[in-house]
Amino acid sequence: MTHALGTNPFSVYFSLNNGLSDTAPSLKRHLSNMKGMYADGKAQAAMLEGGDPLLYEFYDLGVKESEGSLAFGTSIVYPGKVGDEYYMTKGHYHTIRDTAEVYYCIGGRGFMLMENEAGDWIGEPFTPGKAVYVPGGYAHRSINTGTEPLITFYVFRSDAGHDYGSIETKGFRKIVVERDGAPAIIDNPHWT
Amino acid sequence: MTHALGTNPFSVYFSLNNGLSDTAPSLKRHLSNMKGMYADGKAQAAMLEGGDPLLYEFYDLGVKESEGSLAFGTSIVYPGKVGDEYYMTKGHYHTIRDTAEVYYCIGGRGFMLMENEAGDWIGEPFTPGKAVYVPGGYAHRSINTGTEPLITFYVFRSDAGHDYGSIETKGFRKIVVERDGAPAIIDNPHWT
Repeated sequence: MTHALGTNPFSVYFSLNNGLSDTAPSLKRHLSNMKGMYADGKAQAAMLEGGDPLLYEFYDLGVKESEGSLAFGTSIVYPGKVGDEYYMTKGHYHTIRDTAEVYYCIGGRGFMLMENEAGDWIGEPFTPGKAVYVPGGYAHRSINTGTEPLITFYVFRSDAGHDYGSIETKGFRKIVVERDGAPAIIDNPHWT
Repeated sequence: MTHALGTNPFSVYFSLNNGLSDTAPSLKRHLSNMKGMYADGKAQAAMLEGGDPLLYEFYDLGVKESEGSLAFGTSIVYPGKVGDEYYMTKGHYHTIRDTAEVYYCIGGRGFMLMENEAGDWIGEPFTPGKAVYVPGGYAHRSINTGTEPLITFYVFRSDAGHDYGSIETKGFRKIVVERDGAPAIIDNPHWT
């Protein structure tokens, strides 16, 4: 008897210290996977000549897609910057727009940057213990502005789907950069 | 302009140390709220003569109910026993049966006891870092078998609903008790 994952009870370990599972494989995103996503393209190109650092990793356990099932896992964004812009996830809308996502920060600090298609945006601060609610209709991106890995545990409807389209071509309206030694949310110079 | 909670982004803090929020009020369940739910009714009655201890607390933030929204919060089950049966939550089915729930354990140890209406059951161990998936159709109850508070962060579809009916009259098929100093999952003597 075989069942799709999510039909029966199961459990997965994710370390509260580093966010990593000891059984599930993570998906890894290196600097080379983020071409054109940082505002300072020259800085990104220069960095790539010296190597291809791991920017973040996360999990897709493969829970069956249905409107009653939930996908979950951890996201780990490592500390660092491309030029003066902090390491971040690619970010995405849900394909089924009206589906939410919840993130619970278990380590590190940064922002959940969110924007909707009407132009509303907000950067909710992440600190350990902070749960951030991403409502339906909001593209969302995790950004590490600290010196430790930014670790979040996330849950969303398993059939929500990921839509990167408009983000890959235009980015987000705002970017998060270091200014005078502190994080600042500023207009994305390439967003039109 | 007013909006139901969950229409716009928001965040809530839940301590990684004790599970408690500094802003949201918790719902508290004392021993007197659990009448008839422990197998040893005499032990429960005797305990109540000496006081009414807090067994667990959890959060209902009031996120709007819709199939695209998510309810979330923490559950804190305190350590202790009624007779030889460990402190536990009441447990519930979801009214919309085919909706899942995810629990991420951030402290303590115990079990997520699950059973469905077909009679399948399992006790998934909780230890820090363990995420447990409760599929649609499974009643579920958190049980603290350790000496520290059992703290979990949970997420479920906000319109799932809680159905206590069959649990309040029959309980679960299994109970978790101390035997020779260690937790054991045994048949519920009152389940018929």
